Amino acid sequence: MERNPPPRVGLAAVAREAGVSTATVSNTLNRPEIVAAATRARVLSVIERLDFVPNTTAASLRTGTNRLIGLVVPDITNPFYSEIAKGVAAAADEQRLGVILCNSQDDPVRELSQLEMLAEQRAAGALVVPITADAKRLARLRSLGTHLVLIDREADDGCSTSIDDVAGGRLAAQHLLSTRGDDFVLVNGSHAIPQCIDRRSGARAALSAAGLEPDDLVEYEVTEMTTEAGVGVARLLLTAAEAGAPLPSGVLCTNDQLAIGIIRGLTQHGVSVPEQVAVVGYGDLAIAADAPIPLTTVEQPKYALGHAAVEMLVAEIRGEQSGHRHSTSVFRPSLVVRDSAP
Amino acid sequence: MERNPPPRVGLAAVAREAGVSTATVSNTLNRPEIVAAATRARVLSVIERLDFVPNTTAASLRTGTNRLIGLVVPDITNPFYSEIAKGVAAAADEQRLGVILCNSQDDPVRELSQLEMLAEQRAAGALVVPITADAKRLARLRSLGTHLVLIDREADDGCSTSIDDVAGGRLAAQHLLSTRGDDFVLVNGSHAIPQCIDRRSGARAALSAAGLEPDDLVEYEVTEMTTEAGVGVARLLLTAAEAGAPLPSGVLCTNDQLAIGIIRGLTQHGVSVPEQVAVVGYGDLAIAADAPIPLTTVEQPKYALGHAAVEMLVAEIRGEQSGHRHSTSVFRPSLVVRDSAP
Repeated sequence: MERNPPPRVGLAAVAREAGVSTATVSNTLNRPEIVAAATRARVLSVIERLDFVPNTTAASLRTGTNRLIGLVVPDITNPFYSEIAKGVAAAADEQRLGVILCNSQDDPVRELSQLEMLAEQRAAGALVVPITADAKRLARLRSLGTHLVLIDREADDGCSTSIDDVAGGRLAAQHLLSTRGDDFVLVNGSHAIPQCIDRRSGARAALSAAGLEPDDLVEYEVTEMTTEAGVGVARLLLTAAEAGAPLPSGVLCTNDQLAIGIIRGLTQHGVSVPEQVAVVGYGDLAIAADAPIPLTTVEQPKYALGHAAVEMLVAEIRGEQSGHRHSTSVFRPSLVVRDSAP
Repeated sequence: MERNPPPRVGLAAVAREAGVSTATVSNTLNRPEIVAAATRARVLSVIERLDFVPNTTAASLRTGTNRLIGLVVPDITNPFYSEIAKGVAAAADEQRLGVILCNSQDDPVRELSQLEMLAEQRAAGALVVPITADAKRLARLRSLGTHLVLIDREADDGCSTSIDDVAGGRLAAQHLLSTRGDDFVLVNGSHAIPQCIDRRSGARAALSAAGLEPDDLVEYEVTEMTTEAGVGVARLLLTAAEAGAPLPSGVLCTNDQLAIGIIRGLTQHGVSVPEQVAVVGYGDLAIAADAPIPLTTVEQPKYALGHAAVEMLVAEIRGEQSGHRHSTSVFRPSLVVRDSAP
């Protein structure tokens, strides 16, 4: 694609006007910490007066990278990912980086093609929020030579930001144990999703800590973690109750959509929430606070997850020459108590 | 930011291996339509075999642009914008463009700084979804020399994709007129938002077309178009009803959040929806289908809006030398009938 770029003020014109060398102008832009404060101020004021836009394309050709990073999410319309994207965008603004958004639709072929595009653009690195735990797929991405920080997944071989989902599952289960009793059930997604495994482990740990047998935890596993699936599980609970089994005093769901479905399914059949059955969700999406019966749920620091990932990526890129050690920032979730499980 | 780029296969190596000139390799990548099919196939197979990644940074230095476009949205966590972003991302994948996501938070200063960043990156153009109708602000963005396509706003001076909100307001009002009567009320956002004005105009046009007086339309204007604001308006309606005024048979809301609030406020006080009051929303967000009483609403082709905007931007950039005429793609909304207003 071609266009005629507008006439531009060059580095040399700025240097001449400020009475410094072009190297000093360049340093003011790229390594301000090595330029004397007074000089820096003079150069910046000339840059502003002349409306100089640094040509980072030329700079990137020299260094091999752009001030660009990629963000690969499975589905930008999912509020969990759009909150992360908001944190990423804010941190990138602060660092004056551009964020290339890639919506992978959790399709490995599309994801690989997007990472290739990022490599073509000489992106400095990429943030990836993977769904499935395919280590081979992640290794393939890394082999493209791009710095990679994983979000919401601990990386074996790189930096990552994640949420302690074991702690989150434990918090939710402890809340039901202390307010209701030990007969709550777990409504969970596929065990192929590491977060679902972790949240379940946390719930089991809470039972163990209370001197109970974790294997007694009844679990309903759904394939799609949707409101409809929640309604479906509520129907199963009601059918069992009609056959004489007692309703559980609590339901722990591993996302908010499931919890809203459970509440809808139960209340439509005259079961009162939280009086008869308390329901806890996970995620604290906007729908949780906004639900007809506002949802007790586990809050995840989504914005912080995205924001911290950008900072880690920048640290990794900057630190490459001076030696860099991979690390993981693990954020702790917290319990938000609302009407569905007071 | 610096890194050591991985060793790369060059254009020359591909040309040698395929037995063609480097110009032919370049044309295969950039103007495939002028390369013979057999030659193109041979070059592409060598590119694949050698794992050649074209250095678009070098290409962009020659042409002055990157295969990058910007997308500026007010808030990526708002589902209206994230659906648009999904359409943009899909169209960009097809065109092998990178999309730089800018979350402006509707802050003119931040937005301008982001557009400057896009100019620094030599982005080929930008898609902007503006909230407020500040023509000066848009002119300023255009003055940065970036091709600009507006989304969800007709541009006076450029290309745009938009939704016919007058038609949408008319559809919703016609539905209430034909199923309920002429006593429906309008719950609307600020008149500073062009879409709110347009949806109101459509509702008034429907009244006129039915031989009624548009000035008789009762309108509640809220400052924030939230579920809470909807609950607040429901309270006003209930208070008026207690004082002896009849409840309206229908409520037309200019977004889905307001409609969900109206329904919640009414049903919590024993008013049945849709039996006593029918409620229509606008937007068809995920929350509409997923609501306890699924929402009749006006569907907006959000994904198409984003997808078409990328194609317009590419056409504008490509057509610059050969002469380009600005245009607007106006999409027609449609009515989705669900339980809240059958």
